[in-house]
Amino acid sequence: MARTPIIIMGAQGRMGATLARLTQNDPELELAGVVEQAANQSGLEHLGCPVSEDASTILTQAQGATVIDFTAPTVTVNLARTAAETGNPLVIGTTGLSEDQQQEIAAAAAQTPVFWAPNMSVGVNVLLEMLPQLVRMLGSLYDVELSEIHHKFKKDAPSGTALKLAQVLAEAKGWDLKQVAQYCREGIIGERPEEEIGVQTLRGGDVVGDHTVYFFGPGERIEVTHRAHSRETFAQGALRAAKWIGQQEPGKIYSMAEMVLSE
Amino acid sequence: MARTPIIIMGAQGRMGATLARLTQNDPELELAGVVEQAANQSGLEHLGCPVSEDASTILTQAQGATVIDFTAPTVTVNLARTAAETGNPLVIGTTGLSEDQQQEIAAAAAQTPVFWAPNMSVGVNVLLEMLPQLVRMLGSLYDVELSEIHHKFKKDAPSGTALKLAQVLAEAKGWDLKQVAQYCREGIIGERPEEEIGVQTLRGGDVVGDHTVYFFGPGERIEVTHRAHSRETFAQGALRAAKWIGQQEPGKIYSMAEMVLSE
Amino acid sequence: MARTPIIIMGAQGRMGATLARLTQNDPELELAGVVEQAANQSGLEHLGCPVSEDASTILTQAQGATVIDFTAPTVTVNLARTAAETGNPLVIGTTGLSEDQQQEIAAAAAQTPVFWAPNMSVGVNVLLEMLPQLVRMLGSLYDVELSEIHHKFKKDAPSGTALKLAQVLAEAKGWDLKQVAQYCREGIIGERPEEEIGVQTLRGGDVVGDHTVYFFGPGERIEVTHRAHSRETFAQGALRAAKWIGQQEPGKIYSMAEMVLSE
Amino acid sequence: MARTPIIIMGAQGRMGATLARLTQNDPELELAGVVEQAANQSGLEHLGCPVSEDASTILTQAQGATVIDFTAPTVTVNLARTAAETGNPLVIGTTGLSEDQQQEIAAAAAQTPVFWAPNMSVGVNVLLEMLPQLVRMLGSLYDVELSEIHHKFKKDAPSGTALKLAQVLAEAKGWDLKQVAQYCREGIIGERPEEEIGVQTLRGGDVVGDHTVYFFGPGERIEVTHRAHSRETFAQGALRAAKWIGQQEPGKIYSMAEMVLSE
Repeated sequence: MARTPIIIMGAQGRMGATLARLTQNDPELELAGVVEQAANQSGLEHLGCPVSEDASTILTQAQGATVIDFTAPTVTVNLARTAAETGNPLVIGTTGLSEDQQQEIAAAAAQTPVFWAPNMSVGVNVLLEMLPQLVRMLGSLYDVELSEIHHKFKKDAPSGTALKLAQVLAEAKGWDLKQVAQYCREGIIGERPEEEIGVQTLRGGDVVGDHTVYFFGPGERIEVTHRAHSRETFAQGALRAAKWIGQQEPGKIYSMAEMVLSE
Repeated sequence: MARTPIIIMGAQGRMGATLARLTQNDPELELAGVVEQAANQSGLEHLGCPVSEDASTILTQAQGATVIDFTAPTVTVNLARTAAETGNPLVIGTTGLSEDQQQEIAAAAAQTPVFWAPNMSVGVNVLLEMLPQLVRMLGSLYDVELSEIHHKFKKDAPSGTALKLAQVLAEAKGWDLKQVAQYCREGIIGERPEEEIGVQTLRGGDVVGDHTVYFFGPGERIEVTHRAHSRETFAQGALRAAKWIGQQEPGKIYSMAEMVLSE
Repeated sequence: MARTPIIIMGAQGRMGATLARLTQNDPELELAGVVEQAANQSGLEHLGCPVSEDASTILTQAQGATVIDFTAPTVTVNLARTAAETGNPLVIGTTGLSEDQQQEIAAAAAQTPVFWAPNMSVGVNVLLEMLPQLVRMLGSLYDVELSEIHHKFKKDAPSGTALKLAQVLAEAKGWDLKQVAQYCREGIIGERPEEEIGVQTLRGGDVVGDHTVYFFGPGERIEVTHRAHSRETFAQGALRAAKWIGQQEPGKIYSMAEMVLSE
Repeated sequence: MARTPIIIMGAQGRMGATLARLTQNDPELELAGVVEQAANQSGLEHLGCPVSEDASTILTQAQGATVIDFTAPTVTVNLARTAAETGNPLVIGTTGLSEDQQQEIAAAAAQTPVFWAPNMSVGVNVLLEMLPQLVRMLGSLYDVELSEIHHKFKKDAPSGTALKLAQVLAEAKGWDLKQVAQYCREGIIGERPEEEIGVQTLRGGDVVGDHTVYFFGPGERIEVTHRAHSRETFAQGALRAAKWIGQQEPGKIYSMAEMVLSE
């Protein structure tokens, strides 16, 4: 089988370096080029592939190679324009894109296949698909709650993933998350309202990220826990997407959900 | 809303007594009759409903009432014949039915709506539907394992529910459970074969029943745990089925899966 | 071995009825009398022991029997005075005693052996002893957090047991719980302060009570979970205390910790 | 405060490289030298400390520095002889030492402080101290069971840590592990014997190592779980031991238990 050629944006960053290493270790992939600022290029020779700080140079050289990008919104938008011109498929893991920036990505996606996932974990994305089904099948007697654990350096709470999970759970219940999310329970809070989703946050040590969704019903419960063991899981998800997106047609931004449902 | 009338088989047994109590406490249900051996009828007067040791007497009196039966195979087969004649819908939680006995139930199901679930837990049945989907969406990189915990008096291992879960997981992987189930790991076992499902059993105290399915992937895992808090959960599942089966047409044996998917 | 005679206060209440049943089923115990209001005595004949609404009558009749009391503060204080006179050992599970009321109990404890535990679970009390040791042995690099789950009807949060656990954990760290407890995490909360204990609350279904304490350290964590399976566990703890308190001398209020450490 | 000087054996191995990196990042430590085969020394210059393939050269140069050794039994025995002569304290994480080799280590420990732990995780060692206390405080009504999870490449089952945990649990119960360990449960196994400890093994993905000990009692349970997040936790434990062993007197082999109890 022909190897899927890969271009990595920011090959000296933590995620970029991980992507480069995993690409070189994966018999289904080959490293076709990396983009890195001139000042940071020393040490990249051992990769044995073209290196440039100019994305369009690399994308033009490696026509058809899939670009993986975990950088920053402005870089991502420029990259998307370039890819639209060169026709390279694009896998984007960048977070924090504004509405306007997402529009620009969508415009590029009309020209070349684009995959975007704010969370590249296959497991999390599979749960985003499954949990609403669980809500519906269990029915109204089951209370839904959520807790998450992250390392002590994390500055926001709950995590973006926890909020996204809460969002799809609330929608499946037919509720507005803003109305029903409960982040604080202290004192005489009274009986739990039926229309409520507790979202509780733990912090400590170096936990990469755990999320648990609870369904409490009459005489039973279901607990669904996702644990990220290492940040590598996000790189692995991006590489799986890179193998898949090259086989899709342009026309839309593809999601992790579409990938896991189609395979 | 009209209350659904319920007939309970064996109202002095542990499950029958729980069913009678929950029926009386549920505003959507009413107790239309109970069947109990003459020797055990004392104390049933307080139920305020007809009591007899003859099922056909009660079913004839309470035409249209749904019968709930957690007894024994021979009793269940006789009851099914009676219900086929009287037209009462039937909810069966009896386990250990032989192939022949299941044939007899199927024959009755051609005449009157019949629901049968060897495990009446809504949660377990929902998981039996969802877990194969998880297997398929996560893909071949994810190893599947299973553990269960029950009280110290349980005589068989793994539990019937664990075996059923392992069955649907193996099928979703495209494997034969007999080939891949691994109940014993001790000594130098070597690397885990890709085609394997560990099924591990814990026993102790008075645990009603916990089951956990694990999906171990690159850099992440998903754990799905079902915990039965009390045996009441099985009674609750039967009552939910009783409300639902009365609205179905005869012609087949209905399952918990059909119920949770249709609601 | 002689059976330990037991007197139960409020034999028709939920806890009293459970205590009566377990006492009758325990070969090391015998039911020596119950105290219940005249209006509620019907149905107690089957216990086959003296019944009265007057505690002193029963305690005088059954000299030496251990009284188990899960009632209300004012009842408990009166009972303690009576027991001090009759010399019956006393096991108290009543919660919400004021400082003054505790003083009165202490006065009675000078005359007759008194055992008091606001939480009769053996497991919880063992953890109250062990967790401070864990804090000290793990050292300052380990962040401590706590979560709890209770049924949807519980009106206070976190549970009294969670607060007590947080209390002993904070003390072992050398911190003031009021300063370090964190019940709410929402928004941009910044990095976790070293001197903090998150106490997070989940509510739903009919969960009897789960508590988990987390120790997050460099590259590892320890999670200690207590799960109450049924309210019976509190009755079991009281009966274990009843067997033990009869062998102690008067002079102080004995605690569950002393019992589990001495056995 | 003076930094503790550290010598690392095998600085290019996975554990050695981690130890070197953590030492350089820890303000309480300084890297005083590394021992590595001549063929593997390229790239070690950036450490900025003496490098040699001869341990005695490095130990003589860096008198008083604590040596950390995760190599192989024969290397470790030679190192111990050298350290006994130079007086450098020694932290040993090597596994698989024979009785004779342990004797040689003990001889060295008469001359210089020696610390040895087959598992350097602080958390696991703390649990080895605490769990026997839990067994004793909970009493005979509590059934003890154990499960573990490791990555799919692990060749032995249960893990050495699981067996060590089972060992101390059995001893606390007053039982012989060989008599009571139960690794296989399949078929009609009958009620759980009182004198039994189930030890169950799960395998999959890249799990570094989870161990859970269960205490199942009347109406409740306690679960104690240790999760290793990354192999770094073993390096962290060795560095903590390195800070501590320098303050101990020669005369015996010190253990992790002594360290955590003394701090």
